[in-house]
Amino acid sequence: MIELYELGGADDRRFSNFSWRTRLALRHKGLDFTTRPVCLTDKAAIAFSGGKTVPVLRDGDVVVRDSWQIAEHLERTYPDRPSLFGGPTGRGLCLFVNTWVDRTLVAAAFPALAPDALAIVDAADRDYFRGTIEKFTGLTPEAAKAQQPKAIERLLKAADPARAVLKRQPWLGGETPCYGDYALASVFQWARIVSPVRLLPDDDPLAAWFGRVLALDGGSARATAAFY
Amino acid sequence: MIELYELGGADDRRFSNFSWRTRLALRHKGLDFTTRPVCLTDKAAIAFSGGKTVPVLRDGDVVVRDSWQIAEHLERTYPDRPSLFGGPTGRGLCLFVNTWVDRTLVAAAFPALAPDALAIVDAADRDYFRGTIEKFTGLTPEAAKAQQPKAIERLLKAADPARAVLKRQPWLGGETPCYGDYALASVFQWARIVSPVRLLPDDDPLAAWFGRVLALDGGSARATAAFY
Repeated sequence: MIELYELGGADDRRFSNFSWRTRLALRHKGLDFTTRPVCLTDKAAIAFSGGKTVPVLRDGDVVVRDSWQIAEHLERTYPDRPSLFGGPTGRGLCLFVNTWVDRTLVAAAFPALAPDALAIVDAADRDYFRGTIEKFTGLTPEAAKAQQPKAIERLLKAADPARAVLKRQPWLGGETPCYGDYALASVFQWARIVSPVRLLPDDDPLAAWFGRVLALDGGSARATAAFY
Repeated sequence: MIELYELGGADDRRFSNFSWRTRLALRHKGLDFTTRPVCLTDKAAIAFSGGKTVPVLRDGDVVVRDSWQIAEHLERTYPDRPSLFGGPTGRGLCLFVNTWVDRTLVAAAFPALAPDALAIVDAADRDYFRGTIEKFTGLTPEAAKAQQPKAIERLLKAADPARAVLKRQPWLGGETPCYGDYALASVFQWARIVSPVRLLPDDDPLAAWFGRVLALDGGSARATAAFY
């Protein structure tokens, strides 16, 4: 039995972008799993993992934390299921995409949309999350919100290398999706869960690609509680 | 017989970063080739290719231009030689790395080091190249040179996702180099050919990785005419 511990917000919003990488990876592997929503401030619920952050995967007797470690675990444990990486070179390159997403897109997305996310975190997390926004942006959520249009512009510009590639091929992984696609998708999935602002213009090649991600596996990612 | 048409400068400097991607790819495949240096302004020399830019590869009767197209040609034509991409997923992801290098690193490297490159282009190309610098940077080469420290700082910061990954694994391709490594390496190879400024501090993980690139194939890339 596989259990995924992930962030849960108000109205069952599952708003951890890192957990979405894991969700998409589990679906890619065709593995059944149950999810356990955890508040941002509820460290006790995941203390068994030895860490303080989600996602945490419990796969039978094995506990794995950190979305990248979980992806490696799934690839290693279920080699006969569809590959997340497409081989050792693809694994190395997926780590690059994963890191690029973290250091450029997540870094740009947080100041852009976190002020909106304040409305969907659990009531118990609100003060804590307000502090997180202030710590990372140096601004109050209200001041960060006032700069949202500029911050979104920066985010969309940071995504430019992915946009250019997705004009040329349907997935970062070429003809089929790979874990790199899921890392990238996690940012846009987080966006539609935490903010009513439609991030991607319809004519952005990233919008068509993200539509393909949401259509995977019978639309399981589309079906989650989100603004659009 | 394989011939590579590439930029040639003063004192036999081979300063096209795109051609270095092709050189490293040819070495990776273990293919022998001869090179044909061409001035920036000598479009007649490569008119047979139907284009105006190097690299151009003549492989028997086949002519291919554009470094990415050449990589695909080599992978397709020499499937029994070591793979540049490590499979279809790796191919897709290498196109992403290639595009990321072009849009972030090359875009940042040009303003940082092109003013120095003016001294190593062929005398016949100097006025043309001065114009190129002015067009891309909006500055005279002398004014761009004055901003070099800031521009280098921006370039090194832009490389941050690759730096973070190369702390964790020896190559972008994981345990072995792939075309993504060569795309990234082309920027640092260009840097040491066109400018005496040592771009990478010794303790930068990118320096150790680039040292590994230069040591490949008996040090063939290290042996080219360069400043360091």
